[in-house]
Amino acid sequence: MDLERIFNAESVAVIGATKDETQQGYQALVTLQEGKFEGRIYPVNPEEKSILGLKCYSSILDIPGNLDLALITTPAQSIKSILYELGQKGAAGAVVLAGGFGELGEEGKKLEEEIVTLARENGIRIIGPNTPGMINIDKGLNLVGLKNIPEGNIAIMTQSGNIALNLITEANLKSQTGFNYYVGVGNEADIKFHEYLEYFTDDPHTKIILMYVEGLRDGRQFLQQASKTTQVKPIVLYKSGRSAKGSKSAGSHTGALAGISEVSQSAFKRAGIIEVEHPGEMFPVAESLAILPMLKDNSIAILADGGGHATIAADYLTELGIKLSELEKDTRDKLSAILPPNASLANPIDVAGGTDRNPAIFADCAEILLDDRNIHGLLIVGLFGGYGIRFAKKLSFMEEDAAHRMGKLVENSRKPIVLHSLYDYAKPHSLELLRYYDIPVYDSLEIACKCVEALSVYGSYRREYDKEGNFQLSWGSGAAREGQEIIDNALAEGRKVLLEHEAKELFRIQGVPMTRDYLAASEEEAVNCAKKIGHNVAMKIVSPDISHKSDAGGVILGLKNEHEVREAFNTIIGSCNQCQPGADIRGCLVSQMAGKGIETVIGMKTDDQFGPTVMFGLGGIMVSVMKDVSFQVVPVSEYWAKHMVDEIKSSVIFDGFRGRPPSDKQAIVNLIQKVSEVAQAYPLIHEIDLNPVMVHDEGLTIVDARIILKDEDQ
Amino acid sequence: MDLERIFNAESVAVIGATKDETQQGYQALVTLQEGKFEGRIYPVNPEEKSILGLKCYSSILDIPGNLDLALITTPAQSIKSILYELGQKGAAGAVVLAGGFGELGEEGKKLEEEIVTLARENGIRIIGPNTPGMINIDKGLNLVGLKNIPEGNIAIMTQSGNIALNLITEANLKSQTGFNYYVGVGNEADIKFHEYLEYFTDDPHTKIILMYVEGLRDGRQFLQQASKTTQVKPIVLYKSGRSAKGSKSAGSHTGALAGISEVSQSAFKRAGIIEVEHPGEMFPVAESLAILPMLKDNSIAILADGGGHATIAADYLTELGIKLSELEKDTRDKLSAILPPNASLANPIDVAGGTDRNPAIFADCAEILLDDRNIHGLLIVGLFGGYGIRFAKKLSFMEEDAAHRMGKLVENSRKPIVLHSLYDYAKPHSLELLRYYDIPVYDSLEIACKCVEALSVYGSYRREYDKEGNFQLSWGSGAAREGQEIIDNALAEGRKVLLEHEAKELFRIQGVPMTRDYLAASEEEAVNCAKKIGHNVAMKIVSPDISHKSDAGGVILGLKNEHEVREAFNTIIGSCNQCQPGADIRGCLVSQMAGKGIETVIGMKTDDQFGPTVMFGLGGIMVSVMKDVSFQVVPVSEYWAKHMVDEIKSSVIFDGFRGRPPSDKQAIVNLIQKVSEVAQAYPLIHEIDLNPVMVHDEGLTIVDARIILKDEDQ
Repeated sequence: MDLERIFNAESVAVIGATKDETQQGYQALVTLQEGKFEGRIYPVNPEEKSILGLKCYSSILDIPGNLDLALITTPAQSIKSILYELGQKGAAGAVVLAGGFGELGEEGKKLEEEIVTLARENGIRIIGPNTPGMINIDKGLNLVGLKNIPEGNIAIMTQSGNIALNLITEANLKSQTGFNYYVGVGNEADIKFHEYLEYFTDDPHTKIILMYVEGLRDGRQFLQQASKTTQVKPIVLYKSGRSAKGSKSAGSHTGALAGISEVSQSAFKRAGIIEVEHPGEMFPVAESLAILPMLKDNSIAILADGGGHATIAADYLTELGIKLSELEKDTRDKLSAILPPNASLANPIDVAGGTDRNPAIFADCAEILLDDRNIHGLLIVGLFGGYGIRFAKKLSFMEEDAAHRMGKLVENSRKPIVLHSLYDYAKPHSLELLRYYDIPVYDSLEIACKCVEALSVYGSYRREYDKEGNFQLSWGSGAAREGQEIIDNALAEGRKVLLEHEAKELFRIQGVPMTRDYLAASEEEAVNCAKKIGHNVAMKIVSPDISHKSDAGGVILGLKNEHEVREAFNTIIGSCNQCQPGADIRGCLVSQMAGKGIETVIGMKTDDQFGPTVMFGLGGIMVSVMKDVSFQVVPVSEYWAKHMVDEIKSSVIFDGFRGRPPSDKQAIVNLIQKVSEVAQAYPLIHEIDLNPVMVHDEGLTIVDARIILKDEDQ
Repeated sequence: MDLERIFNAESVAVIGATKDETQQGYQALVTLQEGKFEGRIYPVNPEEKSILGLKCYSSILDIPGNLDLALITTPAQSIKSILYELGQKGAAGAVVLAGGFGELGEEGKKLEEEIVTLARENGIRIIGPNTPGMINIDKGLNLVGLKNIPEGNIAIMTQSGNIALNLITEANLKSQTGFNYYVGVGNEADIKFHEYLEYFTDDPHTKIILMYVEGLRDGRQFLQQASKTTQVKPIVLYKSGRSAKGSKSAGSHTGALAGISEVSQSAFKRAGIIEVEHPGEMFPVAESLAILPMLKDNSIAILADGGGHATIAADYLTELGIKLSELEKDTRDKLSAILPPNASLANPIDVAGGTDRNPAIFADCAEILLDDRNIHGLLIVGLFGGYGIRFAKKLSFMEEDAAHRMGKLVENSRKPIVLHSLYDYAKPHSLELLRYYDIPVYDSLEIACKCVEALSVYGSYRREYDKEGNFQLSWGSGAAREGQEIIDNALAEGRKVLLEHEAKELFRIQGVPMTRDYLAASEEEAVNCAKKIGHNVAMKIVSPDISHKSDAGGVILGLKNEHEVREAFNTIIGSCNQCQPGADIRGCLVSQMAGKGIETVIGMKTDDQFGPTVMFGLGGIMVSVMKDVSFQVVPVSEYWAKHMVDEIKSSVIFDGFRGRPPSDKQAIVNLIQKVSEVAQAYPLIHEIDLNPVMVHDEGLTIVDARIILKDEDQ
């Protein structure tokens, strides 16, 4: 693979090398020379003879022998000719630092496309542009010019140099874990997140991938790769820009809602990605996943030396869905033998001063607790690390003893220990020891609890991984000729919106049980249609020019006899003609009235990042105001369709509410899958809005259906 | 006031003084002696002659002269006789460390009551029991034995010694701010939160009160005092135990819901208290409020040296409701003169490398930004403090220069600056300087943003303080004789639940417009009642023995003529008799059918901590599943009743939804106030449940009403 040669380049040219110490064209030369990079380094600058003792070349073509990789530090305008020369030299890749491309708008976007085309023609892959660069830490291939990066097995992929710096600084100051790769993906003009991800997945030294994302250029490919990656190693991801209000004025609820971050959240979750809520959790969660065994079951013990921290930790874990294990009698007996009588032996365990004279008792407690079959991990909260500081120096040695013993305990029990200490900032030796033994230490209770959660979530994902979670789209599969004709017909008429009866017909063709409804072009036809249905019908205007039917007076419900049908037909036609003179009116759709049921909405929207995405929620304010909706990107399997139904808070209503009988959840699950199927079968569909869908005790009724086709550029 | 003498004691006895260094009876003697305490210290222990060079007394009565305060370190059983002797000596207070009281259950509770009674009889006030003690830091009156407490003007009130230790450690390590008081309230057996609060409110040296609360013994008195306190100084509070599921099996929605933490949240907010979400925010938020000017308006600028932190900070502030100011043209011009061309001059301002060679440019930018009339505060995020570490030592001097200038800028502009730095952990001198100038520094972006939010929230509270926010209950005010008779009558019959028509009658008496409904004891009466109403009536069983009317077949709706009324009467009576043989059946309530409207629930529940509390929400799953409800403790003024209606997410439904006309919000506001009034007027009422209340375009209909009276011990 190209990336293999790029990340392991044995020869690197620095285009725009300089003696100016503040420039990356200098700093990268320093880090390449001072680190353990063993390959050849070629500074390129026609105005210098040598830099930092390295011979300087006046042009790329002057470089002797092979060239694997180039760091280009020169401005946007210079890139094209450089790429051409790199092609001549048979280089595999170029790291383009310059800004001034897609991030600046249309003109920059054009330039970006040009350099990508040129790179392809010359067999070169581009990292960036608009990136701080790339580092293979193991190999000393450091093009960022950043020193003192702690080594480890976390690979960083980021869209912000500052966030990478943040992570590196955090690791240096607060951890003994570190990194093996750092790639600034920049504008993702050529190489995309998913390609780097594939490389890190195959790399045996990478244990975990840590990502900062503002937006994905190819979200679908990313999901596909991520769902493969997470089967072998964890991905921890923080996405910013979450508050951006995706309030595009779309024509349906689905349209208005799918821009929000819940789409990416549900997609990331299904791909097994650990998405963290706050940036401060990125490194700690990655560190915990990198160094600790996963939780084999979702229940742990809290060990505390004071009530306050114990209570707060219990609050957090409960909110995060982590259970506090019931202690075995034997465990309680053993604890009670070493702790004072007022110690709390329920979970959380509070030593109640029992460690004040000898903090090594923490290790005794930890041994007893992790020996309990019901306890799968341990969270220690409070003052450990500070006994020597608070009371007497000798206590710090006891703490160190405890650290040695607890460290080995994790290794022997294969159960994780996470420690919270309010003395971390004072950097006591005992906490350094814990980290040496791969026990992470956090000064934030909240973050410590989030790490425990990640150990549980990723552990259970790996145990219960569901193969249906794949994201492979097969465009066109399951399409029917008659279905395609409906779409082609609309397009031929210059329409981007299917008429209600067309949209319903499309679902009927795909095998969805539909109520009977007929298009009536005249009063007489309407009467005949109503007779076929058996009266009690609804009548709705059919016109490509009228999309808000009710507003135009185009909907009348509950027509019980011939007289009412005739009158309604004329009222609707009259009202619509008056409301929108000259509208192309095709007639009225005569439909069976839907029986009683629960009003829901099922939709499909083409998400900017992930493509077709199905939405489900209850009708009315539950969708539009309460935002109680669930999303899944297409294809949606039965497993994930069920998940969508169960995931909304208001889902309990389907189990029978206020004495109502339970509703037909399976019918919803089936319809969600059908919507997913239709979205795949007909790639020209942009948006589907089945709204409302009445769910009955048995079956459901799609009362109204709307399908919007793609614009040509979509 | 007693507390005045206690907190400023000039003579202290330590009962249970000892030479054992691990005991508080020793440690407190050390901190009293080594600190700046200028009063007299009397160790009491019959077995020692002297401790730490202090003469030791064998009994309290042997102490010469006056005695203000005693620290009692001896066990629970010894307290009573000690209190008696302290009374003899005319002491003002006793700090009781011992556990073994109310926290252990019934027996402990009894002992606790006994010592409180005894203390009252002897004119002594008790801090605790079950407390780590109390400290007046200014006076050196340190009974906790904790050393190295940084001095400042934050008073700590806590229910956990560990959390206090946490705060003190944090202040020592990360701040130049500190404390003047520390009181562990313990079991609040005698002196309660509100009494300490009153003392700190009057104390001129206390700028802010910082509280850790697990539960309040007298929530109502606390709210009353807090709402006075926050008019002069801020209270920052963290409450744990928030996840505890208050799922008492009460007889109404109101009952089941009011146990949840939303009650205390809404009460704290109304009292002007800043309740923080995470324990890690306690100290930073208190520090910011203690040292910075408040925001004069809700819009600030973000100054960043990189995109990632800027984006995340903008996300957070937006979510917290803080606006990013529009920059004046003059501001943009001045910035553009000192920053590189690719700098972002929209808000957030990103210097884009413009500070890399001279971080003092941060101060230039800060000066320009705070000079802008639209900008009321500044959040600086990213790498400040680390330039000297990352690049070259000389840059650290430029950072120090910037720190001096920014520090003075806050003083001159009276606009706050909050700084986030990922280099805080490395303790660079420039950050120490910022803190010297009262600019707080945080290494968490989230916490820095929460501090900005607090400066905004408290600032606007002080500007817009609403006098109606008081919490004074006036039991019995507004009661009517006829109303009291209804309650007395039910009690006389041994009933704790008012019958529907009684509950409705009570509201009618209080001046609430009610629909006409009549109690019909016979079929004939039912027919006459229905005639008076004008047909289309509902009929419901009236029986003190049947509380779930629908389940017993006791409700039939929409009766349109005499025949239907007769039939329904007999059906209901028959069904109820069958369902509950021997039930005391009073007849049927014949009611006007409610018109169309929006289904809501208005209730009142007696909260354990705060007493009578009104609840409001939409009916059906919006209350029970979505928990979209609002609470306010009684008395609820018009201002707060409006707030309750607007506060629920689903409130938009009242403004007209899906083409419906707007609903009569004022009618809801009036009814909420009436419920509050009824709760005050009749102290014997424990719970009110008006459910459903149909809200119309004009007016509303209370369809069903239920009132539960207090048990004798409530």
